Amino acid sequence: MSLDGYVAGPNQSVDEPLGEGGEGLHEWAFALDAWRRAHGQGGGETNPSTDVVEQGLARTGAYIMGRKMFGGGTGPWGDDPWTGWWGEEPPFHKPVFVLTHHPRQPLELTGTTFTFVTDGIESALAQAREAAGEKDVQVSGGAEACSQYLAAGLADELQINLAPILLGGGERLFAGVGADLKLEQTRAVEAPGVTHLFYRVG
Amino acid sequence: MSLDGYVAGPNQSVDEPLGEGGEGLHEWAFALDAWRRAHGQGGGETNPSTDVVEQGLARTGAYIMGRKMFGGGTGPWGDDPWTGWWGEEPPFHKPVFVLTHHPRQPLELTGTTFTFVTDGIESALAQAREAAGEKDVQVSGGAEACSQYLAAGLADELQINLAPILLGGGERLFAGVGADLKLEQTRAVEAPGVTHLFYRVG
Repeated sequence: MSLDGYVAGPNQSVDEPLGEGGEGLHEWAFALDAWRRAHGQGGGETNPSTDVVEQGLARTGAYIMGRKMFGGGTGPWGDDPWTGWWGEEPPFHKPVFVLTHHPRQPLELTGTTFTFVTDGIESALAQAREAAGEKDVQVSGGAEACSQYLAAGLADELQINLAPILLGGGERLFAGVGADLKLEQTRAVEAPGVTHLFYRVG
Repeated sequence: MSLDGYVAGPNQSVDEPLGEGGEGLHEWAFALDAWRRAHGQGGGETNPSTDVVEQGLARTGAYIMGRKMFGGGTGPWGDDPWTGWWGEEPPFHKPVFVLTHHPRQPLELTGTTFTFVTDGIESALAQAREAAGEKDVQVSGGAEACSQYLAAGLADELQINLAPILLGGGERLFAGVGADLKLEQTRAVEAPGVTHLFYRVG
């Protein structure tokens, strides 16, 4: 999240799926060896974000994401060959459940299967829980998916990676989440270009 | 600031100058011995926020604040006996410069003099700098005053005390501050009920 509360910048498009300036939200991650390895690249640095990323990967058994995070677009996907933003080898390597209104057969790519869920966030959570086994389910984004789970009282923990940038517009976290959501700060990790914030929900 | 970006809650009033839920932004401070002593009270705890508060007090030579932070209200103050939210002995004990459109003679209270500045934020800064000597000038709030100084490129540092609450509405920081404001994260301090975030501006 940017310091002014956006998790994507304004004017999201195929060329800029994170919106104008939105890549800046993730610069801290792009520099990390842990991130680069997960994306099939070498090099990169080790810093306090490394443990945060590696612990997150280790404890996560399945992901949930919104349709826009998976692949943007607005049309139905019946025969859509589109494999999402990440191409033939997405970085997840775990089951991913995509919230959408458009039915589509599961998409099996190298190391990752995307399952498209059209019957709501509770169904997606149940399926992701089943797939995750003993591990956690992570709702990765975007703003709307995270906000829906928070508003429905279905999240146990909130992690925010707070980047030192302003975006001036775009998609806000917490839209539709009431002020009565109770949060307890459990951890904050200072790292280069980011502060990782952890909250227990409820 | 709340996690959803507000520095005051909705529906600010004389009874709730910080708006609904806005007191929750400062709960971390109310518990501190350092805060309680500055407000003439005893008791309270010592934790990582203590150093942050004491360092802030030690380096600050003068304060600037907006009219609403001083005392709310919307009318002219020519003969207004109103001494601001803090009564006869405000906790500042240093010169305070209040941004307003309504001329008013300086208000000398026990330990603190409020000077009302009607000719703009640059004038207030010049006067506060003169009063602060070698020390820093702190723009304490509210949202509008802070945003104005940030937008005008007159701030060197930004400190945010991020509280683990949502307010769901109210006054946002960064209104009118463009996405081109450059920030560098310099420090983050985890403490009970708050994370203190420091950024170098520009």
